[in-house]
Amino acid sequence: MPTWEAPVRYAEVDQQGVVFNAHYLTYCDEAMGAFCVELGLREFAARVMLVTSALTWSGSARWGDTVHVDAVSARLGTSSVQMTFDVSTGRGRCCRVETTYVYVGDGDRPLPLPAEVRAALTTEAGAYLAE
Amino acid sequence: MPTWEAPVRYAEVDQQGVVFNAHYLTYCDEAMGAFCVELGLREFAARVMLVTSALTWSGSARWGDTVHVDAVSARLGTSSVQMTFDVSTGRGRCCRVETTYVYVGDGDRPLPLPAEVRAALTTEAGAYLAE
Amino acid sequence: MPTWEAPVRYAEVDQQGVVFNAHYLTYCDEAMGAFCVELGLREFAARVMLVTSALTWSGSARWGDTVHVDAVSARLGTSSVQMTFDVSTGRGRCCRVETTYVYVGDGDRPLPLPAEVRAALTTEAGAYLAE
Amino acid sequence: MPTWEAPVRYAEVDQQGVVFNAHYLTYCDEAMGAFCVELGLREFAARVMLVTSALTWSGSARWGDTVHVDAVSARLGTSSVQMTFDVSTGRGRCCRVETTYVYVGDGDRPLPLPAEVRAALTTEAGAYLAE
Repeated sequence: MPTWEAPVRYAEVDQQGVVFNAHYLTYCDEAMGAFCVELGLREFAARVMLVTSALTWSGSARWGDTVHVDAVSARLGTSSVQMTFDVSTGRGRCCRVETTYVYVGDGDRPLPLPAEVRAALTTEAGAYLAE
Repeated sequence: MPTWEAPVRYAEVDQQGVVFNAHYLTYCDEAMGAFCVELGLREFAARVMLVTSALTWSGSARWGDTVHVDAVSARLGTSSVQMTFDVSTGRGRCCRVETTYVYVGDGDRPLPLPAEVRAALTTEAGAYLAE
Repeated sequence: MPTWEAPVRYAEVDQQGVVFNAHYLTYCDEAMGAFCVELGLREFAARVMLVTSALTWSGSARWGDTVHVDAVSARLGTSSVQMTFDVSTGRGRCCRVETTYVYVGDGDRPLPLPAEVRAALTTEAGAYLAE
Repeated sequence: MPTWEAPVRYAEVDQQGVVFNAHYLTYCDEAMGAFCVELGLREFAARVMLVTSALTWSGSARWGDTVHVDAVSARLGTSSVQMTFDVSTGRGRCCRVETTYVYVGDGDRPLPLPAEVRAALTTEAGAYLAE
């Protein structure tokens, strides 16, 4: 079961007939939100900022496709979380996105990850590795 | 003089008060278009697809800012072009984006870069390095 | 059961904390697509253009809300279809949108509605009125 | 001289090759911002909400076009401002948008228009009618 999925919107497709590249970051943002909700960390998702995000495409999503995003937390730093997002359609994976978030609370400066966030993400990573 | 610039749009700013991350790819897409127009390669910009794009943020753009994007072509492959985009506001650079495009013509498979594209990009890189 | 629904995306909310106005047209576009799919008219949705669209807001959607859109076809012309879309959240309706589409086929000029489209829309309207 | 103008962005054009309808509201939002800046009312633009917006299309904008928006304030109510926006390209007007805003200050309830806003808008309307 993917972390998040949605039909491609008509407005997301450009005149080449494929989803415009920027929308992949929006998909991953929603997947991050869903991932955090699953872990009971809904507010956390609105209190992080991106530091780096690297997208690698191996295909395209098109109108009529449903995009699925699998989110996995890969590594925790003092104030950062590394995530991997796999974006796929019925034809297979079309984009992998590796993103580093930093926790900023209500401000715009890095803060240490709250203990409950660290605990939830560590448990999730353990469950994932055990699968 | 930046390759492309535009005031931040109100719709681009999220409830944290900063430009939502996906819009940086849109800015770079426009800068790539402007860069190609400058080199007389306007059609080329609509005939490439992204393979990889890596964004690194060091700041935020906000409503009221004008974003400036400097585009430089870094390296040419058989069918690919590597570009570096520096996105800045009046407070300095807020994001660097390194993107690899492949030329696909009217289809969705990599094709060798047309000779006039290669010539124009090589000249541009030479001019840039000579500055 | 609404014609279409989706959680509000973080990127859709502006710094006032509400969904930016333009996204309501995107929601209605998706609802029109879903409405056409329900009637077996999927291709039709990509072959119409808007002539008029009038939006009236009575509230706001926010991050955390799911938006629901009910689509009803109100009236048929020679080449046009009038639709009413009610956009709501758990707090009730927040926007009504009345839109007139014209059928343009693969071009950009009005064409008479295809017979099967007219039949399907007339049946739908009848079913709706009979509810 | 239009109130606001910008080249059509590639991401704004859909697979029909025309600007997707929702972006017209974004263009008008930016024109409203520019209109308010011209009148010395920059903050005002971020403290209004839309009540109604009616769009009528008579053409399309395409990639390669520059869209121009002329904004005119048509009528003032106690807490509302009616605006007319004409969106055009080099081929002429493609959309007229009539929008009613209400002033909400920092909240989400209508408030009387501040005196300086009323004065500036009344003067603008006078100047416009006198042209």
